[in-house]
Amino acid sequence: MIPEDRFVSEITFNVRYAETDMMGIVHHASYLVWFEEGRSAFIRQQGGSYARIEESGYFLAAGELSAKYIKAAIYDQEVTVRCWIDSSRSRTVTFACEVVDTATDDMLFSATIKLICLNTDAQITRVPAEWDVWLNA
Amino acid sequence: MIPEDRFVSEITFNVRYAETDMMGIVHHASYLVWFEEGRSAFIRQQGGSYARIEESGYFLAAGELSAKYIKAAIYDQEVTVRCWIDSSRSRTVTFACEVVDTATDDMLFSATIKLICLNTDAQITRVPAEWDVWLNA
Amino acid sequence: MIPEDRFVSEITFNVRYAETDMMGIVHHASYLVWFEEGRSAFIRQQGGSYARIEESGYFLAAGELSAKYIKAAIYDQEVTVRCWIDSSRSRTVTFACEVVDTATDDMLFSATIKLICLNTDAQITRVPAEWDVWLNA
Amino acid sequence: MIPEDRFVSEITFNVRYAETDMMGIVHHASYLVWFEEGRSAFIRQQGGSYARIEESGYFLAAGELSAKYIKAAIYDQEVTVRCWIDSSRSRTVTFACEVVDTATDDMLFSATIKLICLNTDAQITRVPAEWDVWLNA
Repeated sequence: MIPEDRFVSEITFNVRYAETDMMGIVHHASYLVWFEEGRSAFIRQQGGSYARIEESGYFLAAGELSAKYIKAAIYDQEVTVRCWIDSSRSRTVTFACEVVDTATDDMLFSATIKLICLNTDAQITRVPAEWDVWLNA
Repeated sequence: MIPEDRFVSEITFNVRYAETDMMGIVHHASYLVWFEEGRSAFIRQQGGSYARIEESGYFLAAGELSAKYIKAAIYDQEVTVRCWIDSSRSRTVTFACEVVDTATDDMLFSATIKLICLNTDAQITRVPAEWDVWLNA
Repeated sequence: MIPEDRFVSEITFNVRYAETDMMGIVHHASYLVWFEEGRSAFIRQQGGSYARIEESGYFLAAGELSAKYIKAAIYDQEVTVRCWIDSSRSRTVTFACEVVDTATDDMLFSATIKLICLNTDAQITRVPAEWDVWLNA
Repeated sequence: MIPEDRFVSEITFNVRYAETDMMGIVHHASYLVWFEEGRSAFIRQQGGSYARIEESGYFLAAGELSAKYIKAAIYDQEVTVRCWIDSSRSRTVTFACEVVDTATDDMLFSATIKLICLNTDAQITRVPAEWDVWLNA
């Protein structure tokens, strides 16, 4: 369920052929790539840039993932990835996403991922205060 | 924790360069591909073949996934994927896996995935009785 | 060099994080996926659909590929994939593409791929006459 | 054709499910990943390590690729990737590979890739003299 009290980013694209597998549907790992691109878009649509975050010496590494595959996406289908911040703590940020069919809004996939904030030495570190702008969007 | 009361498959390989990302470590979606190959190996090591399962008109599609990223794998590292059946019901099979560093046995990743049994019409269907051989291994 | 005597499709998107590798740039296999999506867009922008082509019993399988990596693409960069038909014969279609930086038009990658027309039995077959619409666009 | 006057590395593995696409065969970009892993194995089997090469400040980036898709590989098939050095110059190394069916030795794919030697500033640089050990193997 999309929250109404915070910013939700949205990107739309066609499913790529390479994202399918021999079952004739989208491979289950492809959705993680879409979710990740959804997070990139979330930060971009807030005026930030995950590329700049890494340049400034911070990294958001995958910690825990939970995902539901509801209805299979297929090649060439137009899909929309919506992404928002589920919660954040001093050292972690948890994003949520849902992937829907753009035309019908049918839910295809939903997931949350807890990301851990690391510094350039790969040590767990506090989320910088500057991120508040988009963390509380 | 690896169960002692059932069959646990094991495969070992080197991390591929393509499986890394610009963080310098393995991309979080690559582990799903390893887990999937772990399941293929599980069935293969039980004398079965997932390819033959699909030929016989059954498909195991991803339903729910839960994963923990414990320690990052890196390029060229030798890793071992262990895989076993966590549980099975009339229409679903849940696999578990852990990925460890082959040399030290350090835990890198653990996950479970609930797979849904489909027929050629993509309808949810009962797991065939013939699968008992490896389901209860 | 983009030909002026035929249709050239164009799609623009941001480079995904998953498309990078530990060299900090886009992995060389990712460009093939973009080229393929460029071909999908070519057919789509001509009013066709590669999905429908496969439904009608024809497949375009990779035969020969030739590619030049000119300048590395990086994460989040906006890139444009231009795609056109280089040549076609009775049983093959050769597509060409170039990938450029959207903002500067700097060339990043160029390639051609000869695709072989197969039927549902994976036999080489004649390109259907109906394809003339987009083959000669 | 495999040369008889130089070292040829060999690795064997089963095709992964994720490497297939909805055509029911291996996706054409997957072969590049295998070729790359073949190069990693080439260096490894010569007592070197591409990971250590990058640690020492050198990178081998894709420059030109040429590939032939001869016969489609399928899921679970055991394939063998053979890899050797086609030629080398002061600033480039060209690898060749072939992928065959392990059981029958049927040729599935062949390719060459010219890699460009870069330093940590991404400038083209001379191949270090220490590489002669495996370059002339």
